[in-house]
Amino acid sequence: MTLFTCPLPLRDYPHIVMAHGGGGKLSADLVEHLILPALAGQNANALGDSTVLPPMEGRIAISTDSYVVRPIFFPGGSIGELAINGTINDLAMSGANPLYLTAAFILEEGLPLSTLAEVLRRMGEAAIRANIRIVAGDTKVVGKGQADGLYINTAGIGELPPGIHIGPTQAQIGDVVIVSGTMGDHGMAIMSVREGLEFETTIESDCSPLHTLVHAMLFATNNPTAIHVLRDPTRGGLAASLHEIARSSKLGITLTESAIPITEQVQSICELLGLDPLHVANEGKLVAIVDKDHASQILEAMHQHPLGRNAAIIGTVTDRNRGFLTARTPIGGTRIIPMPMGEQLPRIC
Amino acid sequence: MTLFTCPLPLRDYPHIVMAHGGGGKLSADLVEHLILPALAGQNANALGDSTVLPPMEGRIAISTDSYVVRPIFFPGGSIGELAINGTINDLAMSGANPLYLTAAFILEEGLPLSTLAEVLRRMGEAAIRANIRIVAGDTKVVGKGQADGLYINTAGIGELPPGIHIGPTQAQIGDVVIVSGTMGDHGMAIMSVREGLEFETTIESDCSPLHTLVHAMLFATNNPTAIHVLRDPTRGGLAASLHEIARSSKLGITLTESAIPITEQVQSICELLGLDPLHVANEGKLVAIVDKDHASQILEAMHQHPLGRNAAIIGTVTDRNRGFLTARTPIGGTRIIPMPMGEQLPRIC
Repeated sequence: MTLFTCPLPLRDYPHIVMAHGGGGKLSADLVEHLILPALAGQNANALGDSTVLPPMEGRIAISTDSYVVRPIFFPGGSIGELAINGTINDLAMSGANPLYLTAAFILEEGLPLSTLAEVLRRMGEAAIRANIRIVAGDTKVVGKGQADGLYINTAGIGELPPGIHIGPTQAQIGDVVIVSGTMGDHGMAIMSVREGLEFETTIESDCSPLHTLVHAMLFATNNPTAIHVLRDPTRGGLAASLHEIARSSKLGITLTESAIPITEQVQSICELLGLDPLHVANEGKLVAIVDKDHASQILEAMHQHPLGRNAAIIGTVTDRNRGFLTARTPIGGTRIIPMPMGEQLPRIC
Repeated sequence: MTLFTCPLPLRDYPHIVMAHGGGGKLSADLVEHLILPALAGQNANALGDSTVLPPMEGRIAISTDSYVVRPIFFPGGSIGELAINGTINDLAMSGANPLYLTAAFILEEGLPLSTLAEVLRRMGEAAIRANIRIVAGDTKVVGKGQADGLYINTAGIGELPPGIHIGPTQAQIGDVVIVSGTMGDHGMAIMSVREGLEFETTIESDCSPLHTLVHAMLFATNNPTAIHVLRDPTRGGLAASLHEIARSSKLGITLTESAIPITEQVQSICELLGLDPLHVANEGKLVAIVDKDHASQILEAMHQHPLGRNAAIIGTVTDRNRGFLTARTPIGGTRIIPMPMGEQLPRIC
């Protein structure tokens, strides 16, 4: 009886069909032959409905994000890298060391299996690069026209070292605002592909995991509490992140506009399209609010890290204009940077 | 300057618009006025990108599931209850005590806010009933025709008591197979609404959180290792769950077909539609593989629990037909119950 079943190999279905989400033989094939080899590495049996992890000593940080970016592939990355790095960054912004991810897929009927395979390959490689383990997963299939290719959700958990208390309410008057690099690259990379804009050189997304940069910043001084707030300015850009901090801490934030690093290319395309680069999404940058006495040490440590080479001090936390974000313009005036109402660029992540 | 902004109240937008997912003012409004009040309870400030939880002593169980059920509301529940209970059940099937959930939404442009509000209300109530906290969230909006109303992902973490080792490879020859109640109710409830079938009484989904039933089973004997395998037979039904166990443990499972509890109503609609009730999804039932010497004690404890009143012993684990699921038919024959190839009912959960 052991030769009784005659399993259809996966290649007989070059596209996702509804049955891939039905919990039967085809679902099992998809998980076993496509998803597990790409995502679970040597731990292929461990990717079940639920997984048991060893105890963790410290406080636990937990985070979730769905990824709906369009197009699925773009210069500098894809929805796969984004789904790994984006959730790692959410964890890293609490100061946690990201350890485990779950991965859940919503697939549209008709999606080429080759597209899914490429996204999975990139996810697996991004997870290995960031040294994080994918430990549980789920796959659902919806009919044609009920999704746009594929959507990915990842949830992450990480361990928080003792003594770290990072959060938007921790900002203090006199604190210094640092960004880790140029603003707006991810959003403009997506935008230029989507709109078919061509430039002399391709704008690449900055999609990267930031946890090692955060680690370097935390250990730059002998005082881990010198870092008060960390944010990755994704949707809504730097403006939305700093607005939320100003609002939560009930303090004002003043930027020096000329100090904000923006590449010439992003600056020109923003001018062309009438966008404010401070409202454009980043996927591999952070903004930090740090104690002024430790700012130069932290900035120095950032400059030593590949993801912080262009880090710069761009502003301060003040007791003026509480709850607002303002900028000193190059000609000496002060402008209010508004909180964006909606999105300039839908489905950016 | 404090009266400078003139926030538009949410009611000016009776439907989801793209800007609700843009990370700006409208996103913040949606989270603050609709999502947080429903889901975060008294902990409204805690539902951020990432959340810090207190340390957990034991091993940690982690799980994720996306929910794409259609229709969104059905007799006995909705996508909201399903998103809470389904992930709780995945955790409970490892023996863990479910503690925290994340919730991520993919919303289609044009979704009425009233529909979202009702789903959120039901999620919040289900979380309170199950005594689990929603601690982190995410909202994305996609264009009209790029999703079907709304999709929800929840990921959960729970704490595993010491001494429990439940898993599909733990089944042993001689073990007894117990189900906690009638099979096929959820799938048939969805099916009857979707196909507009009308019966004398409505078939209701069995959607329920099973962790307290599991707790009662674990403490029914003084030996928590008496429970070898637990599964919630969702997609693919009882047949798919038992197949996976037979395959993982490399043992045979033989059921007594007449012992499997199925309501007369589900039985008749299955016959009408040509479906096998063992392939139909459940959302509030479990199947347990337990040590034969403790089976009656465990069954007794299940009968005392509101969700286990109809629990029944339905089969045994054997060394015959290894890797296969077979059933003794009422007329004395033996049939192989096949692993379903795909789904009988797409988008059942």
